[in-house]
Amino acid sequence: MAGGATLGELAQQFDLELRGDADHRVTGVCTLANGRPDALAFLANKQYKKLLAECAAGAVILAEQDADDFAGNRLIARNPYLAYAHVATHLTADDTPASIHPAAHVDPSATLGANCSVGAGAVIEADVTVGDNCQIGANAVLCAGITMGARCKVAPGAVIGSRGFGMAPSPQGWVDVPQVGSVRIGDDVEIGANTTIDRGALDDTVIGNGVKIDNQVQIAHNCVLGDHTAVAGTVGMAGSTTFGQRCMIGGACMISGHITVCDDVVLTGGTMLTRDITKPGMYSGGWPATDNASWRKQVARLRRIEQLNARVNTLESAHKADKNKL
Amino acid sequence: MAGGATLGELAQQFDLELRGDADHRVTGVCTLANGRPDALAFLANKQYKKLLAECAAGAVILAEQDADDFAGNRLIARNPYLAYAHVATHLTADDTPASIHPAAHVDPSATLGANCSVGAGAVIEADVTVGDNCQIGANAVLCAGITMGARCKVAPGAVIGSRGFGMAPSPQGWVDVPQVGSVRIGDDVEIGANTTIDRGALDDTVIGNGVKIDNQVQIAHNCVLGDHTAVAGTVGMAGSTTFGQRCMIGGACMISGHITVCDDVVLTGGTMLTRDITKPGMYSGGWPATDNASWRKQVARLRRIEQLNARVNTLESAHKADKNKL
Amino acid sequence: MAGGATLGELAQQFDLELRGDADHRVTGVCTLANGRPDALAFLANKQYKKLLAECAAGAVILAEQDADDFAGNRLIARNPYLAYAHVATHLTADDTPASIHPAAHVDPSATLGANCSVGAGAVIEADVTVGDNCQIGANAVLCAGITMGARCKVAPGAVIGSRGFGMAPSPQGWVDVPQVGSVRIGDDVEIGANTTIDRGALDDTVIGNGVKIDNQVQIAHNCVLGDHTAVAGTVGMAGSTTFGQRCMIGGACMISGHITVCDDVVLTGGTMLTRDITKPGMYSGGWPATDNASWRKQVARLRRIEQLNARVNTLESAHKADKNKL
Repeated sequence: MAGGATLGELAQQFDLELRGDADHRVTGVCTLANGRPDALAFLANKQYKKLLAECAAGAVILAEQDADDFAGNRLIARNPYLAYAHVATHLTADDTPASIHPAAHVDPSATLGANCSVGAGAVIEADVTVGDNCQIGANAVLCAGITMGARCKVAPGAVIGSRGFGMAPSPQGWVDVPQVGSVRIGDDVEIGANTTIDRGALDDTVIGNGVKIDNQVQIAHNCVLGDHTAVAGTVGMAGSTTFGQRCMIGGACMISGHITVCDDVVLTGGTMLTRDITKPGMYSGGWPATDNASWRKQVARLRRIEQLNARVNTLESAHKADKNKL
Repeated sequence: MAGGATLGELAQQFDLELRGDADHRVTGVCTLANGRPDALAFLANKQYKKLLAECAAGAVILAEQDADDFAGNRLIARNPYLAYAHVATHLTADDTPASIHPAAHVDPSATLGANCSVGAGAVIEADVTVGDNCQIGANAVLCAGITMGARCKVAPGAVIGSRGFGMAPSPQGWVDVPQVGSVRIGDDVEIGANTTIDRGALDDTVIGNGVKIDNQVQIAHNCVLGDHTAVAGTVGMAGSTTFGQRCMIGGACMISGHITVCDDVVLTGGTMLTRDITKPGMYSGGWPATDNASWRKQVARLRRIEQLNARVNTLESAHKADKNKL
Repeated sequence: MAGGATLGELAQQFDLELRGDADHRVTGVCTLANGRPDALAFLANKQYKKLLAECAAGAVILAEQDADDFAGNRLIARNPYLAYAHVATHLTADDTPASIHPAAHVDPSATLGANCSVGAGAVIEADVTVGDNCQIGANAVLCAGITMGARCKVAPGAVIGSRGFGMAPSPQGWVDVPQVGSVRIGDDVEIGANTTIDRGALDDTVIGNGVKIDNQVQIAHNCVLGDHTAVAGTVGMAGSTTFGQRCMIGGACMISGHITVCDDVVLTGGTMLTRDITKPGMYSGGWPATDNASWRKQVARLRRIEQLNARVNTLESAHKADKNKL
């Protein structure tokens, strides 16, 4: 957004309490550590509170309880990170109109909504449907027939709708099984760079509304991700697995196929999940997963397994000595 | 295949026993759950047998022992999934002739066999050789000089023949080692979306006939995959490792470099393999791999390590009490 | 390099001791196993010493202590692999001038240094700066505004500068947080095929000089990699993590966000790192990491956990028997 906004305007528009100069103008955003007078910072993580003392930002969004620790202009928010997300989106809005790069390859049979931008080298194949206000990055590929809702962001190099990995063993080797399903993507979905989502074998692979997928993630055929589920980088998910709503899948998780996970499940990074989960909560571990608390105990014991072994050695020696005494 | 086929035609062509209406015509394939009268389904997994009762498919391919559980048209097969693979391939065959997309970039020195299709944005560099009937997806890259047999499928975004990760340490930092080998790919190979296969340092990286590689797999320089070996998604394989024939590598496996694995080895998902395997069988585990049965026992014990520790605590207390008594 | 070089020329140019025919000409490089009279091989790994006896290479670069094991032309080096790297680079140098492929998409506002090559389908977006002598592979993407030093190699399909995975939770779902930082890449950096490096949220993601990154690696927003650090394939690194100089990160490592690792740390393949490291050395393990020696002990004990359990069983039985006796 060219020109920025005054703190007074921001306070009013985003329903924040301003303590400071209402006429001070900011044109962008900055970190606490590298503050600039014409930019706005935020404090959401206690770890960084110590930076407030020397912060040169033109204003800081923070919570009431931290307000006294900063001497400059403050915007008080109940949820500073969320408030920052809204204000920063406003301040950094791109004024250039959306456009389809002349070096994008959009099949004539594809349907794009209003106000979509498509990067150079992106490929949108036959019969694809894309909703309004979507952003398709450079060299991304939307394979034939997939559908996508509104306001989605597909990063460069992502591939949506590639053939599922389906084949039948035969005495002569693998025989490919046709993959005739599609991929259906909801509204407000983000798909990271070089992430891959395969088309379904028969029914569709389904990505719900508001789902956020990081880079280098692999979603196999016929997976279903419930609304607002988030998937961090380099996760691999095998075929026909279903996640509920609002799940959070940490980086590098390995998810088996044909399992079902209920709503509101968190998998910490690197978790190997091989069974259904029917109870919301946090799960962890690579041998494979269990609930997070059990896993933490198992890890702690495993780290002392050498000592446990030594204790058993001592008991065995003592037992032997006792027997010799008798 | 426009127009589909009658069940009588399918039974004859694929040597299946028909129980039902030989004149019933199907034009596509469907799941048991979402059956359609003009489509054909299959039953290969007992888990789905209960769906037969209400299945609306025009016909179902199934085994003799399940034949009485479906009231509609049946095609009896010894191996229903394999029979389905053949029939579905026939019913869903694409009649449009293969073509090279005008937005594909094929170097004039590259040689493509007959009947190849190349997607938009795909890059085929100098001196590449591709056999007949291959499909190269959008934005895939075949780097200079690689060779590929017939009937291969390369999914969008795959990169074949990139520089191997070879460098020598020096006091001034890493010095690149030229990677002058190539990649040789056999017939009937499938390479998944955004998968990468590096060219060899001196000799070639070799992918055997009938090898199937899923999405986001990394195969480093000078690996050799034997015929009909299958590699699931997000596997990483370090350099100069050799797999025999008919191996199955589960998703997210981590394979060290310079190791040799014999024929007919199965690695379950997430296995970390750091040593040679000389005996066919199933191997598992992330600390690193062992045979699957041992790993299952280790996991079971590890999950009870807290209890094991408590038992040792009890023994120690008892021993101390006994000593005090003496 | 067309025409090759004589062994005398190579010995002089690279300061090696020649034992053999100074006029013998080599035009390329080869392995010990597949030696050719017009090519040069090297011996750096004792494992391959046995191949010297039958090696047909026109010359072999090797260490003094191995010199007597080869009867042909020898070039003696203190560090044979490093010497080979230099000689091979010289012998295999590509004489064709660097060029920007007509099917590359370079934004008019981007600045490319002298002697850069850019492959077909590569996309260089607005305001990107690339130093001299860089190689950008086919279908690689350099997103808007990123900067890169001299002599970098970006492999096909790599994406540099994609949006970081930043969003704030709200009652209505995830709200995107603008990612307005960039990516700054030093000199002599290698970035592998289909690797992704996200732009910073506010400050930049930074890749130091001489950093080498293999294929399919994911580097999240605001990571910092110190000079000469090497990252093997399929590593995932979460946001705001800092590595020092000369670190070596093995394949498939999973690195948490917001951690700091000092100089000269080695992570073996598949390591899950969740905490700061302040002491140089080798670290390992997936539950999560510890120092390599402790991890090796833990793994050894874990592999015998079944036996440990049996020993506790025996002690418990003996204790019970003793009590019954009393």
